[in-house]
Amino acid sequence: MQTKLPQSTIERLCLLFQFCAKLQAEGIARISSTGIGSALGIPAHTIRKDINYLGEVGDTGSGYEVSRLMGHLSEALGFNLPRRACVVGLGRLGSALLEYNRVLPPGFSIEAGFDSSINRLETIRTDIPLYPAYEISDVVRREAIELALLTVPAAAAADVAEDLVKGGIRGIINFTPAVISPSLEEVVVRNMNVVNELRFLSASIALRVSKSV
Amino acid sequence: MQTKLPQSTIERLCLLFQFCAKLQAEGIARISSTGIGSALGIPAHTIRKDINYLGEVGDTGSGYEVSRLMGHLSEALGFNLPRRACVVGLGRLGSALLEYNRVLPPGFSIEAGFDSSINRLETIRTDIPLYPAYEISDVVRREAIELALLTVPAAAAADVAEDLVKGGIRGIINFTPAVISPSLEEVVVRNMNVVNELRFLSASIALRVSKSV
Repeated sequence: MQTKLPQSTIERLCLLFQFCAKLQAEGIARISSTGIGSALGIPAHTIRKDINYLGEVGDTGSGYEVSRLMGHLSEALGFNLPRRACVVGLGRLGSALLEYNRVLPPGFSIEAGFDSSINRLETIRTDIPLYPAYEISDVVRREAIELALLTVPAAAAADVAEDLVKGGIRGIINFTPAVISPSLEEVVVRNMNVVNELRFLSASIALRVSKSV
Repeated sequence: MQTKLPQSTIERLCLLFQFCAKLQAEGIARISSTGIGSALGIPAHTIRKDINYLGEVGDTGSGYEVSRLMGHLSEALGFNLPRRACVVGLGRLGSALLEYNRVLPPGFSIEAGFDSSINRLETIRTDIPLYPAYEISDVVRREAIELALLTVPAAAAADVAEDLVKGGIRGIINFTPAVISPSLEEVVVRNMNVVNELRFLSASIALRVSKSV
């Protein structure tokens, strides 16, 4: 793959991977682009176009072979590579996220937790190594950590993100309500904030209501 | 507003609202579409088009008045309306989410929590009323709850979503890895799943790497 794909295509390919895993679990061996499209609420031609990005995958005439499609997706999307992650900010949400390490898919692992409160670091019970916040850059670099789950207070988010960037982080899931824009453009940020999602739902409802007025 | 807006427009308008709140906190009274665009990484003409959906807002020649723009956004996106929410599934994440009630923006409130384990309902300490899962439809209808935060095990997600739909729910934030598609098309679903977001980051990194190869 030589070109940079749009975010929406990457999102659909990830969703497709998740859907293929579900089909495999249900023992379904083949699926057409129409079948995929109606299950995911995406036009079939968009599905075919997305899959074409992966190169030669299968005959759309007789549908896609699910296991083969998953293999292609897994390779193209790097799901066969190890990805080391850390959790920064160990409040209620952050310490709940440390527990996710047990249920992450193959390849993903949480290798470190950080908090600015030494007191908090001493009270959390976990097998994952915990470090004070001032060690973020050093530990991220030394442990070759690529991904960060950011759950610090909003006011600290931008500074902590820069510490992560200094350590060589490549992707951040931002759970804070702060808008963060790392100084290094290549660092990918995904926002995962309950308040933002509630606002989106509220807006969707409001705009649908006004539609029918 | 008479037409149904695309999801991407609603997302940008929500982001714009969040950005305006930040500007207000910083005491900035006016901003141009170019200023907004470069801060949010969105082309200025897209910003202007999005704002035009709101009707007559301000003179783009001299920039937008932040407080006036926020007022228009708030009204169009329904942020001045009360939105009652519930949390379904009170494991570690679910019970952490109950605590969000204290920090939600004006209008939003968590009015109920549900779990299938009576034992768990009895051990959680919170001011929010908790109910057994079989009461979901009844309580959602009676308490006029519009939004649900879904944190049940993946295998239960689809059934629980239908219980919510029966109660008249209008929007669901799906924290489970399950793909849910409510029987009522008007119900808006937002997926907020750590594994999916980690996969997206991994894919973005993989595809950028292959780009430079």
